Amino acid sequence: MASFNVPDLIRKKRDGAAHTREELEALVLGYTRGEVPDYQISAWLMAVYLRGMQEQETADLTLVMAGSGDLMNLEGLARTVDKHSTGGVGDKTSLILTPMLSALGLTVAKMSGRGLAHTGGTIDKLESIPGWTSELPEDRFLAQAREIGLALVGQSKDLAPADGKLYALRDVTATVDCLPLIASSIMSKKLASGAHTVVLDVKVGAGAFMRTLDDGRALARAMVDIGTRAGRQVRAVLTDMDTPLGHMAGNSLEVLEALATLRGEGPHDLTELCVALAVEALAAHGEDEAAAETRARATLQDGSALQRFRAFVAAQGGDASYVDEPGKFDVAPGRADVTAPQAGFVERIDALSVGRAVLALGGGRERKGEAIDHGVGVEVLKKPGEAVQAGEAVLRLYHRGGRGLEVAQTLLQEGLRVAAAAPAPDALILDRVN
Amino acid sequence: MASFNVPDLIRKKRDGAAHTREELEALVLGYTRGEVPDYQISAWLMAVYLRGMQEQETADLTLVMAGSGDLMNLEGLARTVDKHSTGGVGDKTSLILTPMLSALGLTVAKMSGRGLAHTGGTIDKLESIPGWTSELPEDRFLAQAREIGLALVGQSKDLAPADGKLYALRDVTATVDCLPLIASSIMSKKLASGAHTVVLDVKVGAGAFMRTLDDGRALARAMVDIGTRAGRQVRAVLTDMDTPLGHMAGNSLEVLEALATLRGEGPHDLTELCVALAVEALAAHGEDEAAAETRARATLQDGSALQRFRAFVAAQGGDASYVDEPGKFDVAPGRADVTAPQAGFVERIDALSVGRAVLALGGGRERKGEAIDHGVGVEVLKKPGEAVQAGEAVLRLYHRGGRGLEVAQTLLQEGLRVAAAAPAPDALILDRVN
Repeated sequence: MASFNVPDLIRKKRDGAAHTREELEALVLGYTRGEVPDYQISAWLMAVYLRGMQEQETADLTLVMAGSGDLMNLEGLARTVDKHSTGGVGDKTSLILTPMLSALGLTVAKMSGRGLAHTGGTIDKLESIPGWTSELPEDRFLAQAREIGLALVGQSKDLAPADGKLYALRDVTATVDCLPLIASSIMSKKLASGAHTVVLDVKVGAGAFMRTLDDGRALARAMVDIGTRAGRQVRAVLTDMDTPLGHMAGNSLEVLEALATLRGEGPHDLTELCVALAVEALAAHGEDEAAAETRARATLQDGSALQRFRAFVAAQGGDASYVDEPGKFDVAPGRADVTAPQAGFVERIDALSVGRAVLALGGGRERKGEAIDHGVGVEVLKKPGEAVQAGEAVLRLYHRGGRGLEVAQTLLQEGLRVAAAAPAPDALILDRVN
Repeated sequence: MASFNVPDLIRKKRDGAAHTREELEALVLGYTRGEVPDYQISAWLMAVYLRGMQEQETADLTLVMAGSGDLMNLEGLARTVDKHSTGGVGDKTSLILTPMLSALGLTVAKMSGRGLAHTGGTIDKLESIPGWTSELPEDRFLAQAREIGLALVGQSKDLAPADGKLYALRDVTATVDCLPLIASSIMSKKLASGAHTVVLDVKVGAGAFMRTLDDGRALARAMVDIGTRAGRQVRAVLTDMDTPLGHMAGNSLEVLEALATLRGEGPHDLTELCVALAVEALAAHGEDEAAAETRARATLQDGSALQRFRAFVAAQGGDASYVDEPGKFDVAPGRADVTAPQAGFVERIDALSVGRAVLALGGGRERKGEAIDHGVGVEVLKKPGEAVQAGEAVLRLYHRGGRGLEVAQTLLQEGLRVAAAAPAPDALILDRVN
């Protein structure tokens, strides 16, 4: 690698110029190896924040980050697909979509994350099933993906380690909400994970990282552009996250709702989103969209997706009887309802408030590594647009008492709005980028 | 002190808002005490670089930095005055001006720096006189200032320690050339040093930090504004630094030229600059400018400034016989000339080239703490505007041979331009700000 003077590279970005791939390697790999100190990288990150990055530059940054550690080799697997959500409340989509994709003949060999702050994580949710583990040796992970088309592990520390280090620094230097840095962070892990196709669910709204459709669209475009420049098929769907997806938020509760959806009995919004994402994945592999939609819906009706999920749970050590006996799940015994203050229509159930309520109940973590309670959560009894009577229950808390319950109730009350007139219905799928 | 969240403060500056004094205290004093890590401050510095600072904010930052350590108490001294130059080549002004000010009835109790890179430092120059020391205990420093009106010590580490820490961080994060940071850095030390009046010599040109008159004027205005807001009398003079001041660059050589000037036999440009700065100092203390100029010139003719210099050298342990016997100074024995490539007029002797040549000869240091050779240097035999014959010596090197000599010669050749026509004469004093 050519030798670069780090202050010169900072100066270049400070003055608004674009970096070469070699310069980004010097900065990012130098930092990952501990050769470039954090105080230089944080100054550079602020310069990136305020000066931006060009498209090729963002793609190069992503490739450098992806190449900072191990690269998963999925060459031996057919029609690989990965999925990523930018994070929402009640978002159990991966639990449904991944067995659907497997049933549709694609291969999902995926790394997933844990929940943090008000957003949940797929690994945490699956751990509601006793015995299920996210820790598989690489050979078993690949063999399982080949055999049943679905394997799901925790994210390796050796995958794109530059991203983890940069993210930790961004978190404490006010450089998190910067488009090229967000896009490269997400896509570096997707590129390192090796799938041919990536379907992105970019959440927009009160409970999402991106608050406006314009911001979400820009992020989606940046990620699709990065993937395309890296030779991958990437498609993004922009979806509403003003209100929680489906009815359930909380780990066991979300698995229960996912299982219902896999049996063809899921809530409308959740089902439609899973079908739409499956269509994107199939379309990325060259299938006709109308035919793909028919095939995707069928996996939820004919039991084929549920069968894949059952096999997946068993293969990773989980007690597969839970898949067919929902009563076995540990759900917190306490119940408390939040009711409508007056008669009318539910106008708003704020996703962020619901996410924070689950956190307050003990169902999420503030900091990495904290233990969580899988049994607590919130059920949305009436979705926005539904009519309610004064005093009628709108939200239900599944709790184990204590201080967190009060906090959760207050949060939910604040996040609930009942209006005299029915609100205009919100579209769930706001846009597509590919 | 109120408790602040550091990322929130970084975010505030990132988004272009102005800090309160309390916020600046949290950042700067927190950093100085080691409570706020360098990686947060460097991100903040880059945000300051790209977003700027308002005038009151810059003044507040300066006061916070000034208050980060000891504050010199000069209350017991009459008519105190300090002087600062932003740094140039061949700039021995302080050696002449400070005894002039003392002879004029003002009190100079001053901290000075050492040379770095291509600019020299007053302390290094004075150390050409055997025995002279910059280390005085505070009580002796103050007593000497009271008795002979002139005392000069090295800068204490306890004076504005925030500045030293911030500067070191700016140096490695491409955030040095930022107006509010430069102005606050200089002025924090001046405010902490306690003098009532500060005269600033802002150098502009090829051998200066500020390359254009506009940049220099903006810096001068910022520094005068800070001083005024802090209740001090501050006056700035903008002076040309395209070409070295006087004829000599190098430590012993500059002291020799300063002594000649104190005897009334100095070069025109150097003499005029010292008189102009003395007039500013007297005017800041309420004197009429015309009368002040007459009085200032007289100190160089009547021996009163030289007498003060002699007393000052002796008081700080120096061999005062050097003041009257220039032949005693250690001057490197080697001589080499750089000659005019053709007949014409000297159009340009680049100050930066001369500064770097002195450095190459061993007369300066690249890094703090390095030893220097006081005897080497460069003499400007023909100043810009003077006629020369082809092959006539324009610059003379005082050297001790070796590799540095070749480097110095090349630098000087590159910095010399001889033209057919005489250049338009450059004004030395370009502007005043007060």
